[in-house]
Amino acid sequence: LTTWRLTLAWDGAAYSGWQRQDGAPTIQACVEDALGAFFGVPRVVVHASGRTDAGVHALAQVVSFVAQEPRSPEKLRLALNTLLPRDIACLDAAIAPEGFHARFDVLDKTYRYVVLERRDRCPFRRDRALHLRGPLDWASVEAALPALVGPHDFTAFSVTGTELRSPIRTITRAEHLAMGEEHRLEFTGDGFLRYQVRRMVGTLLDVAKGRLPASEVAAVLASGDRGRAGKTAPPGGLYLVGVRYASP
Amino acid sequence: LTTWRLTLAWDGAAYSGWQRQDGAPTIQACVEDALGAFFGVPRVVVHASGRTDAGVHALAQVVSFVAQEPRSPEKLRLALNTLLPRDIACLDAAIAPEGFHARFDVLDKTYRYVVLERRDRCPFRRDRALHLRGPLDWASVEAALPALVGPHDFTAFSVTGTELRSPIRTITRAEHLAMGEEHRLEFTGDGFLRYQVRRMVGTLLDVAKGRLPASEVAAVLASGDRGRAGKTAPPGGLYLVGVRYASP
Repeated sequence: LTTWRLTLAWDGAAYSGWQRQDGAPTIQACVEDALGAFFGVPRVVVHASGRTDAGVHALAQVVSFVAQEPRSPEKLRLALNTLLPRDIACLDAAIAPEGFHARFDVLDKTYRYVVLERRDRCPFRRDRALHLRGPLDWASVEAALPALVGPHDFTAFSVTGTELRSPIRTITRAEHLAMGEEHRLEFTGDGFLRYQVRRMVGTLLDVAKGRLPASEVAAVLASGDRGRAGKTAPPGGLYLVGVRYASP
Repeated sequence: LTTWRLTLAWDGAAYSGWQRQDGAPTIQACVEDALGAFFGVPRVVVHASGRTDAGVHALAQVVSFVAQEPRSPEKLRLALNTLLPRDIACLDAAIAPEGFHARFDVLDKTYRYVVLERRDRCPFRRDRALHLRGPLDWASVEAALPALVGPHDFTAFSVTGTELRSPIRTITRAEHLAMGEEHRLEFTGDGFLRYQVRRMVGTLLDVAKGRLPASEVAAVLASGDRGRAGKTAPPGGLYLVGVRYASP
């Protein structure tokens, strides 16, 4: 038995998210089908570092699986890039230490939310960034970001129906990066609740638009009240940037 | 009567090029239909600085037309961005001097061809760049570029069936720009024959791959022999960057 670790990138616009579901195109189904074709089996079950929602992109998602037959990593990567649709790419295929699991072994993950602040929409960034006309108050956003860092109960930024596990997560980095008209909100943490990043972004964009004082973000978080958070920002602006593990 | 000048950007992946044709989606048809809806007439005939082929993109194409009714430029721009599909954007709408014609008045145009030199394809650049694994010899490409500058008979880089007008064009700038894995070949000139940029790029990529000596590019050009030029590079890598006019 060989444990494999894949690094995948995808444009999520055409997909109903990572997780396999009947009657909807998903990344997981594409990857499992491609691996099945390569290994000559009906299906290879894979585990990602976590789910991503419909329309969300990945620059480097990590996926693990166990295969019976040994294969060359180089051949697997090349074959996947032939077998997978053009909006999914395999950036790396490597043999992992026995027992490696892409979800259970996560050290931290980084997400990026991209806002395009410009007068007119950009035909090349549709479904890949949130277009806002501005002007946006990014200094206030930067003042609000530290409130999100640390271990917190992020219930205020979660959605109902996801209370099965603890709502406590630790964010180790929350940053605003400006590159011309492109603004990035980046978050690194040990994990994120479903919709958490998009709801934090929605709340921070209320701050950017002057609808919410920067100082109120801490109060929204502390309240645990979902009704006080901003809207869920649209999925097209969100990118899973990378996942880190204890073993390299 | 008001003469208008529009600046448009589009992602050409879904279109059969600029020029209106029956039964195929074209940029011209989208723009004329949107203008017709705005001005309340069946159709407004527009003139672009030139045609672009199927799959080719525009960062700033210029289009002119004449309308009966006066309108606010700001309102026209906003309305077009509502009426046009999401992969076409109006970046500017302005009242032009009487008699302005987007095709006849062109001073020069700039095209960019984008090559992505990296090991694996990028899901976000499919149809927007030519992916090549490399390694590519860009120093040799740079050595070949000056041969294309100046007034030349570009028949060698043209296609048959387009001999109606003179094949002489003047290229004033031919440049290679490297930005990490993204390589740009940029050409500014008073005009380009159909497929000329993509056939020049195809020939330069033969140089980059070591299949053609850099010094041979001048010979291919001088020969006027279409059979000696490289393949036509795929359209997704080509961008009309901008058009200049004598009057600003």
